Amino acid sequence: MKIAIPRERREHEKRVAASPDTVKKFVGLGAEVIIETGAGSASSFSDAEYEAAGAKIAADEAAALKDADIVLKIQRPLTKAEGEDEIALMKKGAVLIGHLAALQNKDLAADYAKAGITAISLELLPRISRAQSMDILSSQSNLAGYKAVLDATAEYGRALPMMMTAAGTIAPAKIFIMGVGVAGLQAIATARRLGAIVTATDVRAATKEQVESLGAKFVMVESDETGETEGGYAKEMSEDYKKRQAELVFEHIKKQDIVITTALIPGRTAPILITDEMLAVMKPGSVIVDLAVEAGGNVAQAKLGEVVTTANGVKIVGHHNVPSRLASDASSLFAKNLFNFLNPMIDKETGNLNLNWEDELVTGTALTRDGNIIHPQLTEGGN
Amino acid sequence: MKIAIPRERREHEKRVAASPDTVKKFVGLGAEVIIETGAGSASSFSDAEYEAAGAKIAADEAAALKDADIVLKIQRPLTKAEGEDEIALMKKGAVLIGHLAALQNKDLAADYAKAGITAISLELLPRISRAQSMDILSSQSNLAGYKAVLDATAEYGRALPMMMTAAGTIAPAKIFIMGVGVAGLQAIATARRLGAIVTATDVRAATKEQVESLGAKFVMVESDETGETEGGYAKEMSEDYKKRQAELVFEHIKKQDIVITTALIPGRTAPILITDEMLAVMKPGSVIVDLAVEAGGNVAQAKLGEVVTTANGVKIVGHHNVPSRLASDASSLFAKNLFNFLNPMIDKETGNLNLNWEDELVTGTALTRDGNIIHPQLTEGGN
Repeated sequence: MKIAIPRERREHEKRVAASPDTVKKFVGLGAEVIIETGAGSASSFSDAEYEAAGAKIAADEAAALKDADIVLKIQRPLTKAEGEDEIALMKKGAVLIGHLAALQNKDLAADYAKAGITAISLELLPRISRAQSMDILSSQSNLAGYKAVLDATAEYGRALPMMMTAAGTIAPAKIFIMGVGVAGLQAIATARRLGAIVTATDVRAATKEQVESLGAKFVMVESDETGETEGGYAKEMSEDYKKRQAELVFEHIKKQDIVITTALIPGRTAPILITDEMLAVMKPGSVIVDLAVEAGGNVAQAKLGEVVTTANGVKIVGHHNVPSRLASDASSLFAKNLFNFLNPMIDKETGNLNLNWEDELVTGTALTRDGNIIHPQLTEGGN
Repeated sequence: MKIAIPRERREHEKRVAASPDTVKKFVGLGAEVIIETGAGSASSFSDAEYEAAGAKIAADEAAALKDADIVLKIQRPLTKAEGEDEIALMKKGAVLIGHLAALQNKDLAADYAKAGITAISLELLPRISRAQSMDILSSQSNLAGYKAVLDATAEYGRALPMMMTAAGTIAPAKIFIMGVGVAGLQAIATARRLGAIVTATDVRAATKEQVESLGAKFVMVESDETGETEGGYAKEMSEDYKKRQAELVFEHIKKQDIVITTALIPGRTAPILITDEMLAVMKPGSVIVDLAVEAGGNVAQAKLGEVVTTANGVKIVGHHNVPSRLASDASSLFAKNLFNFLNPMIDKETGNLNLNWEDELVTGTALTRDGNIIHPQLTEGGN
């Protein structure tokens, strides 16, 4: 069985879908692994390291994907309309796995089906405990939360920890984390490490305990709404709740030095948490990092790919693809997620992949099979 | 008595020599304080904040400096040869105080003398305990050491702390601090905060205890040389010592992820600590921050103002003016140093400055007086 890993071609993408570590593991299971030359270089993985792990290096993407039974990707392939047709390089019957962003790019499913590719969009994994080690959203969000705090320090003109110096004392920074999922929790932990005074808020009251266990203070309106879907994601709240929360945030945010927003609602535009009115009362020199900027943004004036400075001197950081800004670790964990997903389905005798079509991990993520679109959220027009 | 603070005009300089806090203190002593409009904006201090603290705002530098008895600066004034003559804007008899870099710019003393300005170059303060609260080198180095670690994280493709995730464990980063002065100690503390495994080295054996008290490991060759001048600065070591130290570093540096170099010898070009041979054995993706790059650099391929990537994928960060990258706190502490220097010499009755020419703090820092160059290191051609 041949597994191919091409170089990622989308803008702002430095990650790669295999690490020398996962290559070694796949080879150990009897698979042949082909890496497109240079695929790992932006993640500091050299061709030589992949070769030492047992991979073969292909001179270009076509050579890498030719005859490949499995293609591992970070992001969805480029299409003909985008000037380079990566789908056309894959053989009929190949299994493509990655963060295909299936619900944001529904049209692509027809392309996969037409090419006879089994496309698996791994961000659709059900949130069950068996899937945790395969969860690309969690592994990447964790790093994004860490990096968000460091990206804030890069723009912030002060130090985070309290410093007692001969010339006087520097007060610790006040950092406010909005949205306490995986990214928010790691942002809290990182801000605490750096000595900041940290507060956090989330619509899910159940997160209070986690926030407090990390040494931060929980800021939240009183409400009977749970704010949580059955799957454990944040859900959209009532208008009344949103109004009272906005008032609370308005008062709190005046005193903050750094704010990190992480509120995402799956398949929907991100909610606005920081309005123009709130920006106007923030301190000059304060910094906001909007981790939801690619989903429309949590902050009124945030712009994707820019550091915006408001009229009153607040900086809003809207970096592209934050996990890719820690490319080496992000690739290692993403690659490990892919390995953990495939490993139980690789036959230890033959080394071949047997997708288990009875398993919700497969049926929950597979978009196409045998030329047909099969995922319920695509066939039923669901969302 | 009028104290003027102009906007800094040199490249890469975002600091300002007064904060709203020090303005308030000077005004409280009976002084009149004039701030050039916008002088604090790059440090997030607005004209309005200075006004609220009791300052007057001048529309341009000429208006600010006209009639000023004291001029507070971060860096030395621009000269006619540089296209803008800031010295000409000061009145005869004015006292100019700042980091004038007197020994690196000896020619300027004649200009100060000719203009009848008493120029005080505060980086020349003797290292006595009474001067600690006025020590601009320490206050700025402390922030530079902190920022160096964060500047390293900005270029490093991995996380610093150990992270135990569902997809696997991320190992903590190994960080090596070369030169354990004020900057090095704060770099150790910051790297430790972020969860890295930290080692450090210094020619001064006496720093071992400080390094260990911060939770880092000391790496040093055995030697009878103390490596310390009577003033407590690092001094240049023997050829034999340097050779053995280089060998030790060569072996140690192979395993490091991040290296921060901080070795400065006052009035001399910085010593090369990391040679081409050492760079060649470092890991791809590792990052070096050279805090001595403005003094020639501690790292063979470092370039001022650039992030250089070596042939084997090591990044060498050579930022300009690192304290200015934390402009707000750096300005606050620098301003406080200036206040602490002047405060004991301001007459609490009249509000006038009486420089104490019997005090080594004045005689050790004053370059000129009554039209003459008076500093021993300038008159005797000493170094």
